[in-house]
Amino acid sequence: MQEIIGASLVFLCNEKCEVLEDYGVVFDEKIVEVGDYKSLTLKYPHLKAQFFENSVLLPAFINAHTHFEFSNNKASFDYGSFSGWLGSVLNNGGAILENCQGAIQNAISAQLKSGVGSVGAISNHLIEVNLLKESPLSAVVFLEFLGSSYSLEKLKAFEAKFKELKDLEDKKLKAALAVHAPYSVQKDMALSVIQLAKDSQSLLSTHFLESFEELEWVENSKGWFENFYQHFLKESNFKSLYKGANDYIDMFEDTHTLFVHNQFASLEALKRIKSQVKNAFLITCPFSNRLLSGQALDLERTKEAGLSVSVATDGLSSNISLSLLDELRAFLLTHNMPLLELAKIALLGATRHGAKALALNNGEIEANKRADLSVFGFGEKFIKEQAILQFLLHAKEVERLFLGGKRVI
Amino acid sequence: MQEIIGASLVFLCNEKCEVLEDYGVVFDEKIVEVGDYKSLTLKYPHLKAQFFENSVLLPAFINAHTHFEFSNNKASFDYGSFSGWLGSVLNNGGAILENCQGAIQNAISAQLKSGVGSVGAISNHLIEVNLLKESPLSAVVFLEFLGSSYSLEKLKAFEAKFKELKDLEDKKLKAALAVHAPYSVQKDMALSVIQLAKDSQSLLSTHFLESFEELEWVENSKGWFENFYQHFLKESNFKSLYKGANDYIDMFEDTHTLFVHNQFASLEALKRIKSQVKNAFLITCPFSNRLLSGQALDLERTKEAGLSVSVATDGLSSNISLSLLDELRAFLLTHNMPLLELAKIALLGATRHGAKALALNNGEIEANKRADLSVFGFGEKFIKEQAILQFLLHAKEVERLFLGGKRVI
Repeated sequence: MQEIIGASLVFLCNEKCEVLEDYGVVFDEKIVEVGDYKSLTLKYPHLKAQFFENSVLLPAFINAHTHFEFSNNKASFDYGSFSGWLGSVLNNGGAILENCQGAIQNAISAQLKSGVGSVGAISNHLIEVNLLKESPLSAVVFLEFLGSSYSLEKLKAFEAKFKELKDLEDKKLKAALAVHAPYSVQKDMALSVIQLAKDSQSLLSTHFLESFEELEWVENSKGWFENFYQHFLKESNFKSLYKGANDYIDMFEDTHTLFVHNQFASLEALKRIKSQVKNAFLITCPFSNRLLSGQALDLERTKEAGLSVSVATDGLSSNISLSLLDELRAFLLTHNMPLLELAKIALLGATRHGAKALALNNGEIEANKRADLSVFGFGEKFIKEQAILQFLLHAKEVERLFLGGKRVI
Repeated sequence: MQEIIGASLVFLCNEKCEVLEDYGVVFDEKIVEVGDYKSLTLKYPHLKAQFFENSVLLPAFINAHTHFEFSNNKASFDYGSFSGWLGSVLNNGGAILENCQGAIQNAISAQLKSGVGSVGAISNHLIEVNLLKESPLSAVVFLEFLGSSYSLEKLKAFEAKFKELKDLEDKKLKAALAVHAPYSVQKDMALSVIQLAKDSQSLLSTHFLESFEELEWVENSKGWFENFYQHFLKESNFKSLYKGANDYIDMFEDTHTLFVHNQFASLEALKRIKSQVKNAFLITCPFSNRLLSGQALDLERTKEAGLSVSVATDGLSSNISLSLLDELRAFLLTHNMPLLELAKIALLGATRHGAKALALNNGEIEANKRADLSVFGFGEKFIKEQAILQFLLHAKEVERLFLGGKRVI
């Protein structure tokens, strides 16, 4: 059944990142019409209509990269360097995965409370899938492949696991694939996973150049990773699995791929992603980046390469909060751009660009988009010029959340 | 009456920033002895003793720079540039001051909840003084002078106001003075306020070079401030009130002064502060700095100048939270140093260095220091090497707070 909601401020999250005053939306499962709230109520006098004063109405957020399976973590992993962190994950990660259902439930609840309606979930064990299906969230679940040596057996098991995930697909849940990272996936294995994605028309995701250690290794087979394989994986591969970053990028040529992190990608590497990969999207996780490598994504560089950026929380394996609002504030603090401009990048990175990265028909207030809408109330009205920034600074918990037109909060 | 508390981790916050395991403190109003918890309980078997598992015991924090009077503000001021912000404060500041008692009460409560035991409060109207006196907080109240032209009448009124504050002094509340900033205080007026501080043996505080606009103006009488005096203050002074930053610094020669912000101070200016000012302390307010100028304090530069740095919240006039813990996390996000090193600077900046800046006998766990102690509980024990960082990441609300040995929370 159609209804109307309106608010003193509406963020369309379209390309121009328009902010409108006293605007509203007519919607059922999809958005039917967008316009001046009063005019809409006059045009559709029979519809239930509600206006939110001192509030912001905007698309529900998209959190395009998170690891629900690590939701149990608080302080089991070491922060301050990527290598220290990776070592601690290999040593302590197993324990974190145990009995994590309750923690995942909390993580899902944190998504909804922060106004998130869709997630990109990296999964190794599919522990979160049923919880996601039971929740109101839309999810793209990226089954992740890890393996630094060739193993047909491992590949077969992975394909079987992917079939298991595929069988769980429905309107709200899409199966997708992830190639963990250049330092952790052997090339033939990666190519097989990418082929599987092509065959099944699935999205792909990969962690990419999130540390100096990784860059040094991938480009020159040097540095901390020289001892990694023997020490942690008891494998005797002492050379990079790829002939440089380009060798890795080029595998993704005919795909739709989310490249996650990228702080150590040169302008040339980013341009190569843009030119070689059919549908390429960058994801940044500022809090995680601060904790591990200490380096933020270079937004000037991504702009020059013509790539859009989504902001995502990563998992509690490298964060203290799964609220996307907390993450957007971390984004504002860790990037040095003029603040009002940065606020727009943050907002679009959590809406429009996240939707495009996950190939979802939401993230924008426009007719025919899925009616994934959120309302945040404040005690006062923000002035239009400052509205996006003040919203990002002060928004804590969603007041009203509609997903597919259905009220969820 | 003496008692003992101990915790699985104790942060002494001494010069070496020592972290000790299973340590404890014997205290009454002051700290009597510090040592291994078990040994203390054996040495003082008659004392009440309590040990906190999975917890951190540390000195109560010192928030050395805040403006309680602006606690009503949420979104009335413009962020994204210093000049925009200053204009909005001049236009809308008056309304924010109205009926702010309740908001100040909340602000005081936020201090205590985040483990703060002492504050440096900049005050223009002394609205907060009685509320501070009624609270368990120790406070240094800096009565602030503002005035860009000479006025003997204004000076007399200010001196009378300072006497009023002086009369309210007690063990918990100290009167001090603030010279607002180089762009807002005429030199003879500043010199008079500084003389008043010397005569009354009071601490001083001043905002200093927190924006490029201020630097440009103070050094070259150029830029945005050229029109400031006429536009906002209806005054016809179109030249800087000082012959450069050094001219301003030198006025503070024989004083104990807190220089607040300093992001646009050159290494030379910082060295001059160090060499010319008898007791000089730097205060940084990272969230405020991000919102206004977008520039963080250069910690390498402050180190080279030999100046210690305290981290403080500033007021809600340029922040979204008065929790010092939120501020310390903002500090970690806005500075680019190796994270474990930065965490130590943050911790000492909220304890030891804050105490020295406010000339208080606390901020450190050591015999004879005031027993201002806090305990934060966590569900797990942090490993020693990561303890300070993990504490700063995860601490939200104090579990136990003793001020002058008296349990407050």
